[in-house]
Amino acid sequence: MEKVTCFRNIGQLIQVQSGGETPTIVKKTRCALLVSQGRVKKVIPDSEVHLHDFFREVDLAGRAVLPGFVDCHTHLIHAGNRKDEMEQRMAGASYMEIHKNGGGILSTVKATRQATEDELHETARLRVLRMMTLGTTAFEIKSGYGLDLDTEKKMLRVGRRLRKNLKIPVTLTYLGAHATPKGKTSNQYFEFVMEHLPEFRSLADGVDIFCEKGVFTVAHLRRLFLHAKLVGFHQLRAHVDEFSHQGGCHNAARLGAISCDHLEHITPHDIRALQLAGTTAVLMPGANFSLGSKKIPPVHAMLKAGVNLALATGYNPGSHPSYNMQTVLGMAQSLYRITPDQALIAATHGSARALDSHEDFGGLRLDQRADFIVLKTGDYRDLFYCVGENFVEQTYSAGKKVKGWKNPVTF
Amino acid sequence: MEKVTCFRNIGQLIQVQSGGETPTIVKKTRCALLVSQGRVKKVIPDSEVHLHDFFREVDLAGRAVLPGFVDCHTHLIHAGNRKDEMEQRMAGASYMEIHKNGGGILSTVKATRQATEDELHETARLRVLRMMTLGTTAFEIKSGYGLDLDTEKKMLRVGRRLRKNLKIPVTLTYLGAHATPKGKTSNQYFEFVMEHLPEFRSLADGVDIFCEKGVFTVAHLRRLFLHAKLVGFHQLRAHVDEFSHQGGCHNAARLGAISCDHLEHITPHDIRALQLAGTTAVLMPGANFSLGSKKIPPVHAMLKAGVNLALATGYNPGSHPSYNMQTVLGMAQSLYRITPDQALIAATHGSARALDSHEDFGGLRLDQRADFIVLKTGDYRDLFYCVGENFVEQTYSAGKKVKGWKNPVTF
Repeated sequence: MEKVTCFRNIGQLIQVQSGGETPTIVKKTRCALLVSQGRVKKVIPDSEVHLHDFFREVDLAGRAVLPGFVDCHTHLIHAGNRKDEMEQRMAGASYMEIHKNGGGILSTVKATRQATEDELHETARLRVLRMMTLGTTAFEIKSGYGLDLDTEKKMLRVGRRLRKNLKIPVTLTYLGAHATPKGKTSNQYFEFVMEHLPEFRSLADGVDIFCEKGVFTVAHLRRLFLHAKLVGFHQLRAHVDEFSHQGGCHNAARLGAISCDHLEHITPHDIRALQLAGTTAVLMPGANFSLGSKKIPPVHAMLKAGVNLALATGYNPGSHPSYNMQTVLGMAQSLYRITPDQALIAATHGSARALDSHEDFGGLRLDQRADFIVLKTGDYRDLFYCVGENFVEQTYSAGKKVKGWKNPVTF
Repeated sequence: MEKVTCFRNIGQLIQVQSGGETPTIVKKTRCALLVSQGRVKKVIPDSEVHLHDFFREVDLAGRAVLPGFVDCHTHLIHAGNRKDEMEQRMAGASYMEIHKNGGGILSTVKATRQATEDELHETARLRVLRMMTLGTTAFEIKSGYGLDLDTEKKMLRVGRRLRKNLKIPVTLTYLGAHATPKGKTSNQYFEFVMEHLPEFRSLADGVDIFCEKGVFTVAHLRRLFLHAKLVGFHQLRAHVDEFSHQGGCHNAARLGAISCDHLEHITPHDIRALQLAGTTAVLMPGANFSLGSKKIPPVHAMLKAGVNLALATGYNPGSHPSYNMQTVLGMAQSLYRITPDQALIAATHGSARALDSHEDFGGLRLDQRADFIVLKTGDYRDLFYCVGENFVEQTYSAGKKVKGWKNPVTF
């Protein structure tokens, strides 16, 4: 007999439906969520629970239940921190100035090269457990703090260990083209990345590149994408048009990028390219917030054009060392002036689409993974109303309660 | 014999010294904080702890210890919530539009008038316990959701009950001139406030007025302040120049305001007035954040002019229903581009000065109240580095550990 768990007495159940032109939030009250073999089997009115005989019943006492958050852009595996740099930024230095002076990414590269695989795994594992406690049930991790073969592979092996041990959906991205290591020109290093790309096919699900003035060019992006497709990578991603308009967005979209990330400086031309290609726009309000960005992505124009939006933490030890999607929701509302429904869709279904997994999870729909969170209150809008609080009481991954980690993780 | 408690093995002790022109942060490592009769008696190197015999020793295992946060501007006592209004704002309505349509403050007035004194006390008590758990050890509460004699007095009586029962420093402010109730013109209602002002002298420590286009004028502010001084109120406060420049700031400062709050639209002329009068500028980045303010207060010009800055949550059920000073620190850094030291001074000593209590608390200096927080980490900069986490592990008020409340408080 099928073992069905009944999560009953749900005050407010939030699902994301994606049938029509744009995905929509569906709210049900006083209902029960039936889960079997880690997947959503049915939603029934709470008044009908007594008519059935379930393997297990969990009383949620009127609380709100939502799809778990999907965080489709993180740099979660690294050693060291960059608190000094944060103080420099507040004293007026720009992100790119710090980067040029050997700080920024390169200081994290130094620390990450020195760390052992076990050390990297342990710190990342705690971050993941904390992330899940805060409501995230699936996420992506990029390499890119090695900029050499050994360390890039070490990072991706750590990602694979996390995926295997924690049994949660983890997407891995090879971001060799994140920055240029000391002693090489960007062209020299880029050729090195191209040459060794096939070695990463068995380690990562996709590739990514930081396309920006002073980092890598649109020509690099085009060559990387074409080569990656030949090698067999399905997921092409790119950090584009964050600090200036380089044209990375429309080039990446036309070459079949699954996601274009950042997008502060894109134009209507880029938006059309995203829409035509079905490329997801990944927005990271936390980075806008921490960097005090003067320019934010044209969110409303993208929504109007029907571009799929995703929200992500963009966790990284430099501009935004936070893995908390709840904070991201509040920041998205405040910085982008979008409604709770729009933000929540982008943080679940929209973000799952950036991972090519929106059929599998992100909507808490029938037959999807039972990845969900239970709030401390009965109204999901509290997440937006009272920013800075932790409203997530319980996180479930494939129907199983996540043990999690209760403390902040800082190193 | 004097009973001395020794908080030992402190990894990083933060004090605010105020001797010179501008207050400064003093950091000590590996030390012990000696507390007697609720006050700071001495700081000694941790290596000398064994030379003494203490009544009690508390091992803080390398954690950071900071002065508790002081929140000098809150509207903490109220009934109801305004989540619907939040959604309206995201759909494009302005704060002042909502206010004019009978929403905003007036909807909270309706709910607060209907609530019993016990109901108001219980919700406010939980908010205070949660606030303290998050690191606040002293704060101010304003009335202003009654706009009639009974409810305004009821709110202030609730404030006095909180102060008495919780035994913490609570400053109470009569904000009769917060908005105009239905059925009266602002002039009619203002005369009513003026007439009954003496009745509030025994209930509140100070007065406040919302001076803004469409609310109360600078002429109202001037009359209120002069009358309040005659009646015997010592603490004059004003919400000024938030949405437009009305001249409230320099008028309030010249009439001896202890604090001018908001200040988004002030001019260099206003800054000089604040500096000359020794008036504290109370800034609320949370309100700027939630309202998506295009204009933020001229923080660096004020710092340069030597104006005392205070940071506050500005907790209120409309624009910023958060009582979390940790979030305020992160927002201040991001929105105002100030350093961790500048923000922390403003959130402790600076805010205590807005309550005329900077001799008594706010710096964790010798002979001050032993109001302090213990972080989960050993570096206070984590508060600024990883915004959205809760880093406060323990809160002490007058040397006693606060029991607190672990859940968000929403109604």
